[in-house]
Amino acid sequence: MSKKELRKIDITKIENPDFLHDLSYKELALLSEDIKNYIVNLTSDLGGHLSPNLGTIDATISLCRSFNFLNDKIIFDVGHQCYTYKILTGRNLEDLRKKGGTSGFQKTSESPYDHFEAGHSSTSISVANGMAIARDLDKKNYEVIAFIGDGSIVNGLALEGLNLAAQDNHKIIIVLNDNDMSINRPVGGLSKAFRKFSNSAFYIKSKSFIARVFGKRISAFLAHVKNWFKRHLISMNLFDILEYKMIGPVNGHDIKAMDKAFKQAKKFKESVVVHIKTVKGHGYKPAEEDEYGKWHGVNKFDVESGQMIKDKTKKSWSVLYKEELDKSMAKHEEAVIVVPATGTGSHLGILFQKYPDRIIDVGIAEEHAVTMSGGLSISGKHPIISIYSTFLQRAYDEIHHDIARMNLGATFLVDRSGLVGEDGETHQGIYDEAFLLSIPNTIISMASNQKEAEYLLEESYKHNCPFFIRYPKENVVENNEEATCYEFGQWLVLNEATKKNVAIVSVGPLTRSLERMIKDEKIDATLILALFISPVDMDKVDSLLAYKNIIIYDAYATENGFARYLESILTEKGYKGNIILKAVPNTYVKQASVDEQREEFSLDLNSIKNCINLLK
Amino acid sequence: MSKKELRKIDITKIENPDFLHDLSYKELALLSEDIKNYIVNLTSDLGGHLSPNLGTIDATISLCRSFNFLNDKIIFDVGHQCYTYKILTGRNLEDLRKKGGTSGFQKTSESPYDHFEAGHSSTSISVANGMAIARDLDKKNYEVIAFIGDGSIVNGLALEGLNLAAQDNHKIIIVLNDNDMSINRPVGGLSKAFRKFSNSAFYIKSKSFIARVFGKRISAFLAHVKNWFKRHLISMNLFDILEYKMIGPVNGHDIKAMDKAFKQAKKFKESVVVHIKTVKGHGYKPAEEDEYGKWHGVNKFDVESGQMIKDKTKKSWSVLYKEELDKSMAKHEEAVIVVPATGTGSHLGILFQKYPDRIIDVGIAEEHAVTMSGGLSISGKHPIISIYSTFLQRAYDEIHHDIARMNLGATFLVDRSGLVGEDGETHQGIYDEAFLLSIPNTIISMASNQKEAEYLLEESYKHNCPFFIRYPKENVVENNEEATCYEFGQWLVLNEATKKNVAIVSVGPLTRSLERMIKDEKIDATLILALFISPVDMDKVDSLLAYKNIIIYDAYATENGFARYLESILTEKGYKGNIILKAVPNTYVKQASVDEQREEFSLDLNSIKNCINLLK
Repeated sequence: MSKKELRKIDITKIENPDFLHDLSYKELALLSEDIKNYIVNLTSDLGGHLSPNLGTIDATISLCRSFNFLNDKIIFDVGHQCYTYKILTGRNLEDLRKKGGTSGFQKTSESPYDHFEAGHSSTSISVANGMAIARDLDKKNYEVIAFIGDGSIVNGLALEGLNLAAQDNHKIIIVLNDNDMSINRPVGGLSKAFRKFSNSAFYIKSKSFIARVFGKRISAFLAHVKNWFKRHLISMNLFDILEYKMIGPVNGHDIKAMDKAFKQAKKFKESVVVHIKTVKGHGYKPAEEDEYGKWHGVNKFDVESGQMIKDKTKKSWSVLYKEELDKSMAKHEEAVIVVPATGTGSHLGILFQKYPDRIIDVGIAEEHAVTMSGGLSISGKHPIISIYSTFLQRAYDEIHHDIARMNLGATFLVDRSGLVGEDGETHQGIYDEAFLLSIPNTIISMASNQKEAEYLLEESYKHNCPFFIRYPKENVVENNEEATCYEFGQWLVLNEATKKNVAIVSVGPLTRSLERMIKDEKIDATLILALFISPVDMDKVDSLLAYKNIIIYDAYATENGFARYLESILTEKGYKGNIILKAVPNTYVKQASVDEQREEFSLDLNSIKNCINLLK
Repeated sequence: MSKKELRKIDITKIENPDFLHDLSYKELALLSEDIKNYIVNLTSDLGGHLSPNLGTIDATISLCRSFNFLNDKIIFDVGHQCYTYKILTGRNLEDLRKKGGTSGFQKTSESPYDHFEAGHSSTSISVANGMAIARDLDKKNYEVIAFIGDGSIVNGLALEGLNLAAQDNHKIIIVLNDNDMSINRPVGGLSKAFRKFSNSAFYIKSKSFIARVFGKRISAFLAHVKNWFKRHLISMNLFDILEYKMIGPVNGHDIKAMDKAFKQAKKFKESVVVHIKTVKGHGYKPAEEDEYGKWHGVNKFDVESGQMIKDKTKKSWSVLYKEELDKSMAKHEEAVIVVPATGTGSHLGILFQKYPDRIIDVGIAEEHAVTMSGGLSISGKHPIISIYSTFLQRAYDEIHHDIARMNLGATFLVDRSGLVGEDGETHQGIYDEAFLLSIPNTIISMASNQKEAEYLLEESYKHNCPFFIRYPKENVVENNEEATCYEFGQWLVLNEATKKNVAIVSVGPLTRSLERMIKDEKIDATLILALFISPVDMDKVDSLLAYKNIIIYDAYATENGFARYLESILTEKGYKGNIILKAVPNTYVKQASVDEQREEFSLDLNSIKNCINLLK
């Protein structure tokens, strides 16, 4: 068959994956190539997860050929590698990550082909285990597949799942997507151990020996023999000691080989691991060659040149804090940075080079990051944990039990605090204020400009408690820094009204935009920047009592955070005036741009202006 | 030396562990026996952790001989096995677990010999890793020891720590206290895998071979050889694949053998695991023979007969909910109980026998318990997670991301909610209201009597969200149940005042005692039972607006929970009267009896009466 005769699929017109059975492997290769180009072009325009999706195109094609996902279940761990799955199950990606559009993650409301949802990593094995137990209790008949990467599997939740799913008789299929690289790179002894098997010369020899003697079709029986050999004679990995059946390693870009492996996996009665080796960013050179995870999640880029399109006049809050952190590391020898796999996302790359001994990437292990920091802190170091707000909640107990309860000093740089836009419900950084306020002995803060950021970071060394410094996934807008004296716990009065009608207590960088609006438009309202969310500045609270109306403006958290906390304190102080909360409702916020999300909740500056005007 | 000549140590007069070096092994055996009897007698009177402490007497003696813990560091995982350590480092246990007395856990404020604190399990390896990194950065010289049981090591945090401590060059010593039984019993494939090594016939043979050829002193070099053999020729465990050096298994009741093992461990430059086999409850027959963990933590008991001393007229809330759960399991085929190692503590034993397929003990794996429940729920089952309040916080992200966000139905039976008394800071169940309120889409409730408990459990099946039912570590006091119609979200008016002076909104069982006091003493106050903490009953809130004073009484949680939440809602409703919060301050509450803790915070009934009287 010449290339001309190969059927070409219009990938925007796919309704369901049934057509995959009719294609030859050559046609499937063509389809794979088309999907790759489609995803590269799509993300170059809309942004999204690039490398993980390119790496899993072929595996997804094979999975959709080997299983019927209207009956069988699949859980993509993290869910950021499901674009091909969405394409093959008939979803339009033209509105990917846009308001009302297709989600960048699995979404049960979107399609009967989606069976669970994620966004945070390492949940898939536990979910699959639960589904398999339910299936067997109901005596139903379907396969449950957890598709998980080698970076995610070393997280504690995944390891718990792996351990517990190993012991029971509820079969699951774990597809280990081994690509030698998680968000940054897999760390720890296990990531090496996972790879041991495939590097074993004996195994490679025995495999070809078995193939030679028994032909290419390896039956389930032979897999048993192979497992016995492997377990008893050669070096083993975690799956082996947990007594999982193992298939592979299989080339994760060889659809035919994977078809066979999955066929074999279906035959097992027990839980089985299919180990596939994939190349992250497969087929797009800049992503393939990426060592630091820069092509993991992308914004706009030029496909031809592989250049990211950036507005160089703007600086993100991540970059600003990286600069401050750099200065701080030079000044404070006791500082040790701990980061759970988000170093690239938080732009810390350069610090890894400058302070190799004093920055520790623990991989996707948020709990360990915090508890280990407890050990550092009590030994005289000052840990600085760089983490996203949404992942901080994975270490709630460790912040409580291993840091705050013991009066240990630690700085938390909470990146991506507030609304995060396109990633949607799973990634919102709006809950941390509320859950951190439920922990005794915490300091929570948020700067509105660089000077304050510098001050907060320096101040954070002085306290024997966890000191949280929040900052948003946004660019720094205002930076006209005046010389200010900061004092711990003190809020800043940015504008003083002539009448005691309206006072606004406001959190975070938007406060500076509000300040400009108030000054430009000569709005007669007092504006106070709550540099500290906790403790509350009681002197300023006293001064607020004289006002008829108090607006608490926190566009960076739910109303259950600072807004209700301050409201409660005002009430306890006997305030009888009118309190208006302008904060995110305590709900799950769907994907849209941050501006759209703010407008939806009337948290944009215009809404604040309208609110003030109504109080006149 | 006849037994008469052996030196006998008065264990209440020990000042530090230095004397241990001067004792012969026979004298040490005598000391061990004395400590055992002391601990048995002590706990039979004061309560506390019995089995874990009996199991580790000999190991602790050996550790204190082998290391200098004014320089070297030791972290007892969970910390409930440190009584012998406290005795040997000169602490008085006569006031153990009492107000102002010695803690049942390690406590840095108590002694320079305590280097970290715990109460929750599985933190020790991460802490040790942090301490070792700090030591090496400072070029200091001390050993760091994580002492951890086989039940704790399968928790995600410990596995993360184990994985990450394996890769770096910061030496720690992990003492694996392998006693075949955690709080209930270790579960999952790993607990089997940990034991593989010791069961390997080849290893046992090779060990005696080496001993025969090289004499009994096994040098570090030979340990290397042994490790090589083990890794390459025999079945391996998790430590092996992570490439930890391994020593053991050593008899954890043979002080001499352990002395040698620890000496060897000190010689290694790399991290090393010393595997000791101990018998939980060692030396006290009822505890040794205990299959279900009943002797793990004890209240008063008779030493001779091994009978627990119980007031049979009283029923605990745990037992009440076990009875309700039993009925519910019979009625609802879709119900599946998931419990993270606390089945015995929550008295679920009988349910394991009655519904073996529908109750799953996942061991100390709170995160997996919740995420797996997500898988059960989306597959048509109704998971009921039985967990202590203090451990619930270990699954904060999973409740958020895998249950609440996806509108999945699940019941959480939150045992030991509220003040817990003698266990102190690490075990308080007072934070959950606040942290659960920070999660959207949660229902939080607390019954005051059995009828309500029955209603809440039944109601919890009807909602597509996590439904939390809290109950305290207390006996059921009042049980005079009247026939009441319950409706979702509705609070109950227990007493109606003649004047609109004082209304009390009250949470939990204490409300019934308050009701009796109000009726008996003819106190003119309206009393409302907030059966639901969230959602708030808005009709009742409206009716409250007419009152001059509102007391929000929640002795079962911090003020950042229900108290401030309702205060905020009252404020938003325009309430201008006086709100008084009677709840636990947002702090760490030290050990004392629950009654003493309530008095300290003026949360006892007398304080409430005084508060009401002041409002007249």
